[in-house]
Amino acid sequence: MAKNGTLTHLGASGEANMVDVGGKADTERSATAEGCVRMLPETLALIREGNAKKGDVIGTARLAGIMAAKKTADLIPLCHPLMLTKVAVEIVEDPALPGLRVSATAKLTGKTGVEMEALTAVSVACLTIYDMAKAADKGMAIGGIRLVEKTGGKSGTYNRTDG
Amino acid sequence: MAKNGTLTHLGASGEANMVDVGGKADTERSATAEGCVRMLPETLALIREGNAKKGDVIGTARLAGIMAAKKTADLIPLCHPLMLTKVAVEIVEDPALPGLRVSATAKLTGKTGVEMEALTAVSVACLTIYDMAKAADKGMAIGGIRLVEKTGGKSGTYNRTDG
Amino acid sequence: MAKNGTLTHLGASGEANMVDVGGKADTERSATAEGCVRMLPETLALIREGNAKKGDVIGTARLAGIMAAKKTADLIPLCHPLMLTKVAVEIVEDPALPGLRVSATAKLTGKTGVEMEALTAVSVACLTIYDMAKAADKGMAIGGIRLVEKTGGKSGTYNRTDG
Amino acid sequence: MAKNGTLTHLGASGEANMVDVGGKADTERSATAEGCVRMLPETLALIREGNAKKGDVIGTARLAGIMAAKKTADLIPLCHPLMLTKVAVEIVEDPALPGLRVSATAKLTGKTGVEMEALTAVSVACLTIYDMAKAADKGMAIGGIRLVEKTGGKSGTYNRTDG
Amino acid sequence: MAKNGTLTHLGASGEANMVDVGGKADTERSATAEGCVRMLPETLALIREGNAKKGDVIGTARLAGIMAAKKTADLIPLCHPLMLTKVAVEIVEDPALPGLRVSATAKLTGKTGVEMEALTAVSVACLTIYDMAKAADKGMAIGGIRLVEKTGGKSGTYNRTDG
Amino acid sequence: MAKNGTLTHLGASGEANMVDVGGKADTERSATAEGCVRMLPETLALIREGNAKKGDVIGTARLAGIMAAKKTADLIPLCHPLMLTKVAVEIVEDPALPGLRVSATAKLTGKTGVEMEALTAVSVACLTIYDMAKAADKGMAIGGIRLVEKTGGKSGTYNRTDG
Repeated sequence: MAKNGTLTHLGASGEANMVDVGGKADTERSATAEGCVRMLPETLALIREGNAKKGDVIGTARLAGIMAAKKTADLIPLCHPLMLTKVAVEIVEDPALPGLRVSATAKLTGKTGVEMEALTAVSVACLTIYDMAKAADKGMAIGGIRLVEKTGGKSGTYNRTDG
Repeated sequence: MAKNGTLTHLGASGEANMVDVGGKADTERSATAEGCVRMLPETLALIREGNAKKGDVIGTARLAGIMAAKKTADLIPLCHPLMLTKVAVEIVEDPALPGLRVSATAKLTGKTGVEMEALTAVSVACLTIYDMAKAADKGMAIGGIRLVEKTGGKSGTYNRTDG
Repeated sequence: MAKNGTLTHLGASGEANMVDVGGKADTERSATAEGCVRMLPETLALIREGNAKKGDVIGTARLAGIMAAKKTADLIPLCHPLMLTKVAVEIVEDPALPGLRVSATAKLTGKTGVEMEALTAVSVACLTIYDMAKAADKGMAIGGIRLVEKTGGKSGTYNRTDG
Repeated sequence: MAKNGTLTHLGASGEANMVDVGGKADTERSATAEGCVRMLPETLALIREGNAKKGDVIGTARLAGIMAAKKTADLIPLCHPLMLTKVAVEIVEDPALPGLRVSATAKLTGKTGVEMEALTAVSVACLTIYDMAKAADKGMAIGGIRLVEKTGGKSGTYNRTDG
Repeated sequence: MAKNGTLTHLGASGEANMVDVGGKADTERSATAEGCVRMLPETLALIREGNAKKGDVIGTARLAGIMAAKKTADLIPLCHPLMLTKVAVEIVEDPALPGLRVSATAKLTGKTGVEMEALTAVSVACLTIYDMAKAADKGMAIGGIRLVEKTGGKSGTYNRTDG
Repeated sequence: MAKNGTLTHLGASGEANMVDVGGKADTERSATAEGCVRMLPETLALIREGNAKKGDVIGTARLAGIMAAKKTADLIPLCHPLMLTKVAVEIVEDPALPGLRVSATAKLTGKTGVEMEALTAVSVACLTIYDMAKAADKGMAIGGIRLVEKTGGKSGTYNRTDG
């Protein structure tokens, strides 16, 4: 449900602007996001076998996600630059998809939330998985990218409640 | 179906590497990708009304997508730097989602394909939509990010055939 | 008037260096800068008509200015990296120029001023206006880029007093 | 005079887009731009004396301009990434301003012009001069930034004809 | 031996400038560079054991090197932006150092050499090794960074001849 | 000696991650690193003569080092973004090498150390020296890059004790 019926990046007369967070308190904040890459079972098997030997597809995607979290303010026009204190990206196989599930957690002590950093880490990790496996499977699909949990800040804790 | 059963970014002994494209011909290449942001109908209405007046959520997301396409090689570890000759991002409302549908096309004359540029443009446009509307709706989900069409290069034309 | 007769970026023996601000207090600081793009009246009319329908030239330049403010430390060799809490860019028509007037305000709570961030936002917004209208008018000129106001920090408030 | 009465970055329905240059020929192109920083005579004297000894204000500004030219596509939303073959920045004193005059030339063999690269180099060199001298003089003004000459490409040679 | 007794980045009157390579032919060029990180035998053992299980220190350093090669023109002020067609980084243990040996090869078809790209990849891979192991060993030293081989271009093939 | 026998960037199950520094205190921290570029005596003479007139090789390398320190978190995958309060780079001739010796100091008030920023500044300054003199001497070697001193933070002061 729309909590307050306003889009905070829009100025009084409607132009996009970076919201003023100068008056907000420095609090501990964290956010966790998730997403997945659906692929052919053969593609998942290729990645798994590569991983059993070298871990490269998953390892590369994890690093790409972590590095992307640090570039969030460079990618999302109205995001504030933030001093992340932690970024972690986990990638696990899900044979039922079939494919890989990605989750990312970002943390900082600061004036604004880190959900965009967690979502950006997940998105770029998924794009990297696509890049590294696309020679074998161009039909992969990235989806289910959403916020799982958010803590800290005036709006308090958010937990996604739907499945 | 896995076309060739190999992951081209893995070296002979399995380490991730940037593939050598030096021997490939410079050909005209293009790629189109798509994705969407699902949201509450109220959120879509908020964006639509903002757009009716100022166009900012959609306009900002379109620009963010275009600019992100130019950063693809900076985000995806093993992508080659490319000289894009065109990037276009389109965003349309879909009340049936409900939400916004994003598509992006990238083009160049070069030695390697531009599907990652198109997919990156879509992903960052979707993230920007999330960022600009998240004050009203943290439950939005980004999904359906996939390659729609790819032309040029040795592997020829790809068209997604499933729904 | 030269306030202290020293250029603080020069070391004791004259080499350029990033000034040590470690001993400065974290205070609320803001800066506002302005500039303009002079153009043919026909060019201004083209932008106005485009804007009446789509708002794109001005909207694109505003976003480019906001995003550039976040890159200031990357562009200006001796600027400190800063955690901006706000950036706002306004662009208005001035038929008397004829052209567009740009102003930008940057804010943070930190150890050093944000005048370079405001000036960089103005400069890049002006460059973007030039880029988007240059097919119609290569004779446009960017000028009048200067600091309007600065608050916070040891040196106190600065207000430009000349016309 | 508006040459063709169109703004090429606007799509058929008015949205900003990166123009398709894929069909353009690779030709040798160059562009020269200029600008200046007006300052107090005392400030110019400070820079000159610093320069007599170390050359740092002008040397730093020259490098900042060269490096900024390489970031043009990152700063200006709809600029194409380009493979510059040359960037040169010159900065000379003009006691009559009083201040410093900056000019920049960019060259490449490619599909699109380099006027934005030359203008960006000038703008960032001017911002760097401001940054390095602002402790002594906050009233400096950056102006007169414009295209001086452009060669190559379908539109042929452009020379600014007014003073 | 100094081949031509000139520093090509210096202008006629001595200022640093980006050399004009517009008149050079597009040829296939490659460069290989090497370097090493000396460390305590215990530190090498820690990395080896971590690698036996997860491969992370070496895998992370390899990716950091590859990604850094793509940022060379952003880091080295007078380097031209280049369209690398390949970057490969190899890292092997050398118990005799004791430590890790890094080598990198960069390739392109273009107007200027890629030795800086290979050297930058080696340097950043070494820095990343230091970063990942510094909790255990702050006394590590990075050294022996030099060009091993260079092919293509007017100056022909270079092979380091000393030990 | 390996102080604690652990590599802090490895997670519980061995994957590389950005360490959580959220619980660390904001303290004043500084780090100094050093390195050198060995070259032919003729090359050093060329640089010296160029410097006597214009100071460009050394001046350019110093600025490149300072700017690179600000990009550390962008280059080293698991480094935290930091708000440096000072970066200084010094470069001196050493006829006994023969070559140039580089040292860099970085400072901040924050939650994590700045040794990587100091080491990155030294490395990129050395790479820039190589770039600017490579037309005369491709056999230059970069080496001796190590941490000299580190203060602040829980682990206290570190001073390199070996020669």
